[in-house]
Amino acid sequence: MDTLLTSKAQVRERIATLRNVMKTEGIDAYLVPSSDPHLSEYLPERWQARQYLSGFTGSMGTLMVWQSGAGVWADSRYFTQAEAELAGTGISLMRLAGVGATQHVDWLAANLKAGQTVGVDGTVLGLAAHRQLEAALTAQGIQLRTDCDLMNAVWPARPALPSAGVYEHTAPHAVISREDKLQLVRAAMQAAGADWHFISTLDDIAWLYNLRGSDVSYNPVFIAHTLISKTTALLFVGEAKVNAALAESLKTQGVEVLPYAQCTSELAKLSGTVMLDPKRVTFGLRQAVHTQAKIAEAINPSTLAKSRKTEAEAAHIREAMRQDGAAMAEFYAWFENALASKLHITELTIDEKLSAARSKRAGFVSLSFGTIAGYNANGAMPHYHATHDSHAVIEGDGMLLIDSGGQYLGGTTDITRVWPIGTISAAMQRDYTLVLKGTIALSRTQFPRGTLSPMLDAIARAPLWQAGLEYGHGTGHGVGYFMNVHEGPQSISKTIPDANMAMQPGMITSIEPGLYRPGKWGVRIENLVMNVDAGTTEFGEFLKFETLTLCPIDTRLIDKSLMNADEIAWLNGYHATVWERVSPLVSGEAKRWLEQRCVAL
Amino acid sequence: MDTLLTSKAQVRERIATLRNVMKTEGIDAYLVPSSDPHLSEYLPERWQARQYLSGFTGSMGTLMVWQSGAGVWADSRYFTQAEAELAGTGISLMRLAGVGATQHVDWLAANLKAGQTVGVDGTVLGLAAHRQLEAALTAQGIQLRTDCDLMNAVWPARPALPSAGVYEHTAPHAVISREDKLQLVRAAMQAAGADWHFISTLDDIAWLYNLRGSDVSYNPVFIAHTLISKTTALLFVGEAKVNAALAESLKTQGVEVLPYAQCTSELAKLSGTVMLDPKRVTFGLRQAVHTQAKIAEAINPSTLAKSRKTEAEAAHIREAMRQDGAAMAEFYAWFENALASKLHITELTIDEKLSAARSKRAGFVSLSFGTIAGYNANGAMPHYHATHDSHAVIEGDGMLLIDSGGQYLGGTTDITRVWPIGTISAAMQRDYTLVLKGTIALSRTQFPRGTLSPMLDAIARAPLWQAGLEYGHGTGHGVGYFMNVHEGPQSISKTIPDANMAMQPGMITSIEPGLYRPGKWGVRIENLVMNVDAGTTEFGEFLKFETLTLCPIDTRLIDKSLMNADEIAWLNGYHATVWERVSPLVSGEAKRWLEQRCVAL
Repeated sequence: MDTLLTSKAQVRERIATLRNVMKTEGIDAYLVPSSDPHLSEYLPERWQARQYLSGFTGSMGTLMVWQSGAGVWADSRYFTQAEAELAGTGISLMRLAGVGATQHVDWLAANLKAGQTVGVDGTVLGLAAHRQLEAALTAQGIQLRTDCDLMNAVWPARPALPSAGVYEHTAPHAVISREDKLQLVRAAMQAAGADWHFISTLDDIAWLYNLRGSDVSYNPVFIAHTLISKTTALLFVGEAKVNAALAESLKTQGVEVLPYAQCTSELAKLSGTVMLDPKRVTFGLRQAVHTQAKIAEAINPSTLAKSRKTEAEAAHIREAMRQDGAAMAEFYAWFENALASKLHITELTIDEKLSAARSKRAGFVSLSFGTIAGYNANGAMPHYHATHDSHAVIEGDGMLLIDSGGQYLGGTTDITRVWPIGTISAAMQRDYTLVLKGTIALSRTQFPRGTLSPMLDAIARAPLWQAGLEYGHGTGHGVGYFMNVHEGPQSISKTIPDANMAMQPGMITSIEPGLYRPGKWGVRIENLVMNVDAGTTEFGEFLKFETLTLCPIDTRLIDKSLMNADEIAWLNGYHATVWERVSPLVSGEAKRWLEQRCVAL
Repeated sequence: MDTLLTSKAQVRERIATLRNVMKTEGIDAYLVPSSDPHLSEYLPERWQARQYLSGFTGSMGTLMVWQSGAGVWADSRYFTQAEAELAGTGISLMRLAGVGATQHVDWLAANLKAGQTVGVDGTVLGLAAHRQLEAALTAQGIQLRTDCDLMNAVWPARPALPSAGVYEHTAPHAVISREDKLQLVRAAMQAAGADWHFISTLDDIAWLYNLRGSDVSYNPVFIAHTLISKTTALLFVGEAKVNAALAESLKTQGVEVLPYAQCTSELAKLSGTVMLDPKRVTFGLRQAVHTQAKIAEAINPSTLAKSRKTEAEAAHIREAMRQDGAAMAEFYAWFENALASKLHITELTIDEKLSAARSKRAGFVSLSFGTIAGYNANGAMPHYHATHDSHAVIEGDGMLLIDSGGQYLGGTTDITRVWPIGTISAAMQRDYTLVLKGTIALSRTQFPRGTLSPMLDAIARAPLWQAGLEYGHGTGHGVGYFMNVHEGPQSISKTIPDANMAMQPGMITSIEPGLYRPGKWGVRIENLVMNVDAGTTEFGEFLKFETLTLCPIDTRLIDKSLMNADEIAWLNGYHATVWERVSPLVSGEAKRWLEQRCVAL
């Protein structure tokens, strides 16, 4: 993504150009969300307008530009990074910290005058977000224009739509056939009284058709929309992305491939009831639906279905976790030897070597996100990425945080570990141990089926809170199956829960409490866990977490005096499992390393 | 409330009468909420229509009557009780269990046909509840009539409005003057751009004016509405309830007393912006506001202000807790002696003796709710009340649950304890100990200021969940200051949180996990706790709980093998505090009892 690396001078120039276009168009404030027509988390370059304009490289954040200023609204994960990237650009960091922080919507309502106009590209604005924005602005007499994509005027070399090919996710890793998945979606449509179901979200579409692509970094998805009726299924996808053989095969299964741009004209033909998810469809596409059609708002049935991994999928995931654990052991054995030999190792070397170790494993497809390797102060930035211009050398004393993961044909991994370098301090050990207590506390929790996932968040935080410590990000995100590394609906966080976030068997979530001391170090210990049956009592059905991730948690950083017997027993049990399951896949140095790191505490 | 005790035959007759009136009025389904024009939790008899009609005596529940059936919607706290009370009446129990349970609104939308009519008395229907009901019914083409109070036709001897006198809550217990409180409310009005603020909730009104009454059982409030402008304050209250001297004194402080019924005509005169809380004002009163006035919806500023007890209030509360603890010690000393002497003691005796012990304490005004004394199987009904016709004798072996509390001039108490009777089983001890672990876990929790209170709920449940156990009620409710024993906005429960539920210093909440084995026994261990400062770190401001309640937690019921060292240390520390603070207030048998029960584990 080198085309997006920008200098401060470029940012100032681009904002100035945008302001000129805004003047011509009569727009007083222009909103640039981190968003695309599919409301994806990771955006194809074409839709990275916020990054192009502001130089802020964080994965989430909203840019607003007005004549006398500009601001990026970002949450606490990005504060340190955004401060650095926005300095000298004339763009302010608007901190989204805690309940009641001023959202960009509130800011607009408070700072614009009645009669002024806010512009935004409606084709990348979520329907729910549009609703909130319009309500807030209308109440103040402020106009909202959604028909203005100013980026073509401001971004001369704006990238085109991605053109990579679409391929099939096949058996044995694709466990449910696309006919069965379509059947499941149509059953939900019938229950909702819907004639049509429209889906824009790329993970839902890839899951539904057992297709994968590489249009988006790290997520094996492809740019498409789909429109399903009781008998037909239309897949709107860029021409030449689906080859003739695949298109033919899809056709025999009732899935017709149509040009990507044809989506809006098909929506314009609809009548009857169209089911769509207001959080997962843009305002632009909602507006494209013929006014005679009735809209039934509901979560995409595929979102709920794919969150619950089947037994057969779970078996593939367990194998992918073994492979991932073996890659970690290979890498760390090399790393510790290299350190001992005083080799020059930087955060970039780590990314390179760890990715190489993963790429050798059976079923590996790609990374599941950009490796975060942060040494000491860099580890204190939860979403830090080393670059060629700015990265640390691993030397001296401290803690190294590595957050990484892979896409395998049989699952998606995501793991964070922290490793001691040189001599470590008691303060480091204390922070590490308190975070570990949070990871263990939640990992051991059993809870009623249907518990709203956000309600579990405090259990991981409690050991940190007790010491006056806190972290600014969520405790855990849902994870897909050879799909997005962030996939809902479940979320263990301070999010306001809704009924779709209820914990169900087969859901996979991360558990990743952390602690960040700006300028010093960061700690995060992350495993993926799956909801499994914990038995039924007279009080109902209970679930517990099966820890899927298989890699030692470094015990050299533990202050054992802070751990209780139950926590030590959990950790020793975990290391016994890691050794049992991963050791058959490694040999030599890697095996010796694994054995050493799996020794009971 | 003997007038409300009904036989099954009476219930059938009353429902039949209602059905006839419904036919005449053209109403297909008639909704009777547990509600009054002030949306109170405890209802004056006049508005206990649901209980009068159905015979179901639970404090919450919604009755719906249609021609071919009738149902009471109630949550799990009331299942056992409602089953018993509704049996043979022809009214079904509609169980509200868990997320996604069918609410009465959903039931209406699903079971009535387009063109049919639902009736409800709009003067007792909350504005927010009306909005939800109307949206659901309109979507199905069902009519909603809110102008029909059918109860006058169905309830010949319907009680009139209560007429008890209003009195002043005076210094030193009333800590903030009514001028200062009015000033505080007016500052919030100004911030919201409101010309008027209308309040219907009785606890807000009593708090604001430092007035108290006895119109509602257990809550020291009086029936009134109030309308505040930047310069005036109108208090609408039944004639003769406020004597001439008090009315004159209020007038000198800018508060004008007007007849209760004049409220609607004053609302009909308004222009400008009227601030009101949609959860705390009825649809009927909202409709009374002149259409030229603009409504600004917001939580009552008084609700937030009174939830945060001042330092001076906290000092009075601590003293009230000592008095309450002394009453408990007096009672239990008598109780244990009486048991040893084989006296005939029933659940009713307990209520009588415990209330007598409280009534002797300094500052005592009344009970804060009806005493729940439930022996064995009766303890398994969280909202059980012994009656003359149905109550247990305390004999044999088992557990006795007592949930009780008092209103003192300097605070409101609410405490639940469980006591061993005769020989207790290992199963009882295990249940008791697991509940106690929940009480201790949350009591020891420290958390960031502003944490949304529902997010703490799981911490109390986790020890029970671990054993496949669960309870159907919330973990904790807010508590007033010589005011309602249930007072928000904070709530430690599975409620969907909103920003007003953020934990702030000075808030008082109960911590009361429980466990109920229908037909066997119930356990609940409840203390009141107050949010107090726990220091500020680089990660923000932290709060912890000060346990206010002062009464031993019986250690004879504990299975010590299930407790860890931290839990035992907390309990021993608690008992040391109870002994230190309560022992100076008791003597003789009570002091000996207290000493015995406060021995360290």
